[in-house]
Amino acid sequence: MTDNSLKPFFSPKGVVIIGASTEPAKLGYVMARNLLRSGYTGAMHYVNPKGGTLFNRPLHKTVKQVPNPVDLAVILVPAPVVPDTLKECAAHGIKAAIIATGGFREAGSEGAALEDECLKIAHKHGMRLIGPNCIGLLDTHLPVDTTFLPPPPPAPGEVAFLSHSGAICAALTDWMRGQGMGLSRLVSLGNQVDVTETDLLTLTAADPHTRAIILYIEAIRDGQRFMAEAQKASLEKPIVALKVGRSAAGRKAAASHTGALAGTESAYDAAFRKAGILRADNTEEAFHWARALAWCPLPKGRRVAILTNAGGPGVTAADALETNGLELAALSEATIEGMRAVLPPFASLLNPVDILASAPPDAYATCLRLLLDDSGVDSAMVIVPPPPAFSAGAVAKAIIPVIQASDKPVIVVPMGDRLVQESIEFLRANQIVDYRFAERAVSALGILARRAETLAVLKERPEKSPTIKITRAEKALSKCESGTFVDQDTASELMKAAGIHTAESLLAKNANQAVTIAEQLDYPVAMKIASMDISHKSDVGGVALNLDSSAAVQVAFQNMTARIKHARPDAKIDGVTLQHMLPPGQEVIVGVVRDPQFGPLVMFGSGGVEVEGLKDVAFALTPLSRREAEEMLDSTWAGKKLAGYRNIVAADREAVVDALLRLASLAEALPRISEIEINPLRALPPGKGAWAVDVRIKL
Amino acid sequence: MTDNSLKPFFSPKGVVIIGASTEPAKLGYVMARNLLRSGYTGAMHYVNPKGGTLFNRPLHKTVKQVPNPVDLAVILVPAPVVPDTLKECAAHGIKAAIIATGGFREAGSEGAALEDECLKIAHKHGMRLIGPNCIGLLDTHLPVDTTFLPPPPPAPGEVAFLSHSGAICAALTDWMRGQGMGLSRLVSLGNQVDVTETDLLTLTAADPHTRAIILYIEAIRDGQRFMAEAQKASLEKPIVALKVGRSAAGRKAAASHTGALAGTESAYDAAFRKAGILRADNTEEAFHWARALAWCPLPKGRRVAILTNAGGPGVTAADALETNGLELAALSEATIEGMRAVLPPFASLLNPVDILASAPPDAYATCLRLLLDDSGVDSAMVIVPPPPAFSAGAVAKAIIPVIQASDKPVIVVPMGDRLVQESIEFLRANQIVDYRFAERAVSALGILARRAETLAVLKERPEKSPTIKITRAEKALSKCESGTFVDQDTASELMKAAGIHTAESLLAKNANQAVTIAEQLDYPVAMKIASMDISHKSDVGGVALNLDSSAAVQVAFQNMTARIKHARPDAKIDGVTLQHMLPPGQEVIVGVVRDPQFGPLVMFGSGGVEVEGLKDVAFALTPLSRREAEEMLDSTWAGKKLAGYRNIVAADREAVVDALLRLASLAEALPRISEIEINPLRALPPGKGAWAVDVRIKL
Repeated sequence: MTDNSLKPFFSPKGVVIIGASTEPAKLGYVMARNLLRSGYTGAMHYVNPKGGTLFNRPLHKTVKQVPNPVDLAVILVPAPVVPDTLKECAAHGIKAAIIATGGFREAGSEGAALEDECLKIAHKHGMRLIGPNCIGLLDTHLPVDTTFLPPPPPAPGEVAFLSHSGAICAALTDWMRGQGMGLSRLVSLGNQVDVTETDLLTLTAADPHTRAIILYIEAIRDGQRFMAEAQKASLEKPIVALKVGRSAAGRKAAASHTGALAGTESAYDAAFRKAGILRADNTEEAFHWARALAWCPLPKGRRVAILTNAGGPGVTAADALETNGLELAALSEATIEGMRAVLPPFASLLNPVDILASAPPDAYATCLRLLLDDSGVDSAMVIVPPPPAFSAGAVAKAIIPVIQASDKPVIVVPMGDRLVQESIEFLRANQIVDYRFAERAVSALGILARRAETLAVLKERPEKSPTIKITRAEKALSKCESGTFVDQDTASELMKAAGIHTAESLLAKNANQAVTIAEQLDYPVAMKIASMDISHKSDVGGVALNLDSSAAVQVAFQNMTARIKHARPDAKIDGVTLQHMLPPGQEVIVGVVRDPQFGPLVMFGSGGVEVEGLKDVAFALTPLSRREAEEMLDSTWAGKKLAGYRNIVAADREAVVDALLRLASLAEALPRISEIEINPLRALPPGKGAWAVDVRIKL
Repeated sequence: MTDNSLKPFFSPKGVVIIGASTEPAKLGYVMARNLLRSGYTGAMHYVNPKGGTLFNRPLHKTVKQVPNPVDLAVILVPAPVVPDTLKECAAHGIKAAIIATGGFREAGSEGAALEDECLKIAHKHGMRLIGPNCIGLLDTHLPVDTTFLPPPPPAPGEVAFLSHSGAICAALTDWMRGQGMGLSRLVSLGNQVDVTETDLLTLTAADPHTRAIILYIEAIRDGQRFMAEAQKASLEKPIVALKVGRSAAGRKAAASHTGALAGTESAYDAAFRKAGILRADNTEEAFHWARALAWCPLPKGRRVAILTNAGGPGVTAADALETNGLELAALSEATIEGMRAVLPPFASLLNPVDILASAPPDAYATCLRLLLDDSGVDSAMVIVPPPPAFSAGAVAKAIIPVIQASDKPVIVVPMGDRLVQESIEFLRANQIVDYRFAERAVSALGILARRAETLAVLKERPEKSPTIKITRAEKALSKCESGTFVDQDTASELMKAAGIHTAESLLAKNANQAVTIAEQLDYPVAMKIASMDISHKSDVGGVALNLDSSAAVQVAFQNMTARIKHARPDAKIDGVTLQHMLPPGQEVIVGVVRDPQFGPLVMFGSGGVEVEGLKDVAFALTPLSRREAEEMLDSTWAGKKLAGYRNIVAADREAVVDALLRLASLAEALPRISEIEINPLRALPPGKGAWAVDVRIKL
C-alpha cells in the first residue's frame, strides 16, 4: 500500500522537534543536533516552552509559533503532555508525528491509557504516528535524522533497517560502521500505536536507495496484512528477518498432533517462507546477508567455484558448501587448461582451485576471470590468506575489475586483520562483499542462491485451487457446536465435500448392529470406539483391526466397550464406528491448524502414534500451491519414501499432494474449523488414490 | 607420553637457522628477524653458505662452525639439500629440527622420496623432526619464534594452537591480534613426517602458560594413539578441535546399514566426544570458545542469569539459551528483592533481568553481584548496549571487580563498535571474555558447561566390561573365511559367546525338513531365505512371518524359494532358516563397524528397512561405558521410546544397554570382525530381555 499519509515521514518539507533542549546531556539536545548535522535541507524548527535559542535558531515556546512549512513533528516531551502536544500539532496542520518519549504502554496501565488517547487524537485529525517509545527514524540519502543516536551517524548505504527494538539501534548502527556497512534508512517503531513494520514495507521497498531490508521483529500483529505487503515488497527488494522470542513462544495447548507440533514458530517460519522473506538465525548473519544481497548480482544456480592460495581454507569452504546446500562447480576443460598455462605445476586446478602461496595478484585475476567465464560456474569466492610475497591489497586491486565485469556474484575472503586491512578497504569502496572467514562467505552465497530461487517462485502466477463443495461443507457444519470436535458423520461429510476419499464410517450402537453394518461394508472391517471424549483412541484400546467374521466383530465390540468403560468411566460412549479395511499402503499424517496470526497452517509428515516423537513433519500456510505441497513432501522422510524405498512399495504421491491441497482449501473456505487432522491418510499404490482413515475436526 | 626427545623444540638451549638470509624479501630473513625480536634468551645462530653478517651476528658458512650450545635447527634450504643438512646437524649433535622448506610429499613423488630420506636420517641419528613444509613454531612465554610469520608477532596469551595447515597461521594469528586474543604457543606441523599433533598434546597440556588448546586437524594418522594421548591431555586442559574435510570424507562402500550410516565423520565425532575434545563447527567458534575456556572458571550447571539494559538483546539471549541446551535460571526471592531495592519500578526483575537504559554502572554491579550470589545461578552474561547516559567503559569498570570476586563464569557483551571500545579494552586487560553479540556469549557459556560435564566424565573410573566368552567366539570364527559374511550358525554361536539372546535359528533344506523343524521350535515360526548372496532379505521377499501350521510352512517354503530363484537367479540358496516367533516388543538396530583409525564404532537407533532414511541413529567408540550406551539411547527417538510412549508398551531398556555393551566387547575382542549388525534387536517388556532376531557379521 503506497500510502500518502506516510509521506511526511520520509520526505518532510519541514521538521519540528518538540522538546529540543539546550542541555547537552539531554536527548532533546542530541536530537536537535543530529537533525542539524544530518544535512537535512528542509525547514528545521525547535520548540521548548522555556524559549531561547539553540544552534543559532530560535526555540519557539509553542508549536503554534512555528513558521511553515512544517509537516513532521518529533515529540520528546514527558508522556502526560504528549496528547496535548499532538492536538497542538493537529491544530497547526501537522499530519505526521514521531513520539520518541517513553512511559506509555511499556510502563503499565496508565501509560497504555495515554497511548490510547494519542491514537484517538491521531484518528480524529487524520494524523499518522510512529512510536511512542522509539528512537525515531533517519534516512541517509534524503538526508534526515530525527534520532537521538550518539554520534557519529551511520554511513549512507543500501540497507534499510526496520526495528521493533529501539535499544539495539545505537549498538547495531555503531557495529555496522565498524564493519564498513552503510544504512539507507533506519526506523525504530517503538510501541507501534499506529504505524507498524507492515506499513513501511512497500514504502521502503520502493525507496531507490534501498537494495535490501532487514526486519527486526518481536511479534507481528496483523499476520494477514503483513503477508500481503511482504509478498509485494519481496518482489522488489530482498527482505531479511530477525525474529526474536522463539523460546518464549512455547507450544499452544492443542488437542491434535498437528496443533502440538505446529507452535508459533512453525507459523512464522512458514509465513516468512511464503512471503519470500529470508529468516536469519542470528543478528550477525542478518546483517552479513543483507550486505551481500544489497551488493551482489544474483546467481543462476548453486554451483560455486572456490579460488584460494592455500589448501586448508579451500577445504573449509568446500565443507561449508555442503552444509549450505551449494555444490562445487565442475570446471570445464578449457577453464582448467587456461589456468594451467599461468600457474605453477603443483597448483591444484580442480575446484577448489589452489594457486599456491607464491601466486602473484595477476594469477588471482586471470584464474578468477577464467572461472567466471565458465558456464558451469554460477558464483565464486576468492580466499586470500595474506600472501607471503605480495600484499593482500594488491590481490584485491587485481581482482576488483574482474568482479565488476562479471554478472555473477563473487565474494572475497581476506583472512586476517591488519595484514588484510588495505584489501578490505579497496573491496568495500567498490561495493564488493568481504568476510574474514570462508564459512560466512559460503553462507552469503547460499542466501544469494536462495533469493534467486525465491524471486522466481514469487513471480509465478498463482494457480487455481482444487474445487471443493463449500455449500455442502457449510451445511454439514451448520448443526455443529463451536469449540467441540465434530462427529464422525459430519467429518466424513466434510471430507466428501472437500473431495478427499474417506472410507465410509458407520456407527453401531450395539454388537448386533455392528455385525449387520460389517456385513454391509464387507469384511474385513476396522472397529473404533465412538466417543467425543476420547481423542487418542488407540491409547485406550479403542481400535480393533482386521475383523473378518461376525464372531470377531461381536467379541471385539464386547471387549472394547468393557475395556473403555473401565479405562475411562467418565467418557460418554456412543457405540463404535465400523469401516471396511482398506488395502495396505503407506500411512502419513496430514493436518491443518489455524494460526491466530497467519491463518490455516497445513502439516504433512510421518503419522501414527509416533508423530510427536519422530517430528518428521513440514508446515506451510494457505493458500497452498502445488509446489509448496510438493516441497513439504520433499522435506520429510514420509514424503520421500512415497516414491518407494527398498521393499516399501511406492504410493500415490499425486493423491497425497491433492489431499493436501483440498485440505488447505477446506480450511480456507470454512473459518469455523480450527483444526483438522487425518491420521492416517493411507496412500495406496500409484494411481489408486489416498484415503482418509481417521479424521478429527475441531471447531 | 612426556617425551624428552621433544624437549629441544620448546626449551632449546640454542637455535640455529640454516638458510638465514640478508635479503629482506626472503623468508630466511624474516625468520632470522623473528627469532631475534622474539626475545629468545638462548644462543642464536645463523647459517648461510655465503657467509657475512646479519643483524650484527656472523652468518656461519656451515653448521659445523656453529658454536655450542645449539640443540634446535630450523631449516629453510632448498628441499634437495635438506637431507645433507640434516646429516650435518646430526654430526653436530643437534637432535631436533624444524624443516620449514616446502617441495616434499605435497609436491609429488620426488618430494615424497626426499621426505622418506629425511625420516631415515632422523631415525638413524635419534633426531626428531617437525615439518617439512611448515611455518615452524613459536612460544610467547619462553619466548621463542622460529616462524616466518609477517610482523607483528602474536601477543602472549593462554591459548595454544597446533595446526596441520601452515597457510592459515599467518591469517589466524593476525585475526587473533585484532580480536585481542593472545597465544601461548603455535606449532605448524606441515607434512608430519615425524612429529604429529598427538606427540604434542601431552606436552602442550603440561605447559603452565597454556590454558586451552586448539587443534586444526585435516586427518589423524594413528587414531588409537591419538585417543590415548587426547584423553590424558583433556584431563589437564580443554581441547577444541576444528576438523576440516567433512564433505570429502564421503561414505564408505558398506554392506550394512551401520557401515553406510557411519562414515568417517561419525567416527571423528565419536572419537572427539570420547576423548573429551570439544568439536567446533567453524573457525571463529573454535577461537571464541578457546578464549572462554582459557579465561573463565567452569560452571556447576546449566542455569544462566542474563543481565541487560534493554529488552531485545535479553530475548535474543534467552532464545539462544534454548538452542544451546542451557536454561534461564529461576531467581530466588532474595535476589529479586535485592534488585528491586536498587532498580526503577519498571525494571524487569525476572530473568532476563532488564535494568533499563537509564541504569547507572552501579546498578549493573549491584545486580550482577546479587545474581552471582544466588545459588540457583551457575553462570551469567551481562549485555551492554551503549547506555545513553553513561559510557559502556564505566559499566565495564563497575562490573570487573564483581566478576573477579566470583567463582562463576561471567561473559560480557558490549554491543557496538566505537561506543564500546573502551569497555572492551578494560575487560580484555582483566581477562574477562567479551563478545559483540549475545548469541556468541551463549555459545561460550554452553561450551563451558560442556567442558565441566566432560571433565567429570573423564575423571570417572573405567568400569568393568561385561564378561564374554572369547575362546568360544574365536573357535567359532576359526573356520570362517575373511572378507565374507559368516553363516547363520556361526552368527548365532558368536551371539551366544557374547551373551546376547538370540532366537535359535535352524536351517531347513526342503519343505518337509522345514515342517519338522517348525514343530520342534513350536509355532508360530518365522522363515527366512538362507543365502550368503542375499543381504537384504525382505527386499526380495525372503522373509515370511507368523507361520502357524505345517501347511503354512510348506506353502511359504515353496513360494519363497520360487520367488527368489526368479528374482535372484545368481544367488546360491542354502534353504531357509526357521525361528520361533518371539512375543511382540520394540525393535531397534544395534551394530558395530570397524573404523580404520579409531577401531570399533558402535551404532544404535531406529532399525527396520527405514533405518537409512530416518537416520535416527547414534554412534560411540569402544570401549563402551554404560554411560555412553545410555547416552546413545537418550539421543535417539528409538532409545527414548523404550521407556514407553502413548500406547507403545515400554521395553527392556536395560537389556538393550547390556546388548550394546556385549556387542562392543565382542568387536573389541575379535579384531577379525569388521561389521556386526543386529537388525532388529527386539526388546521385550521390562525384565523380559532383548533378543537378536537377525544377525549379520562380516569378517
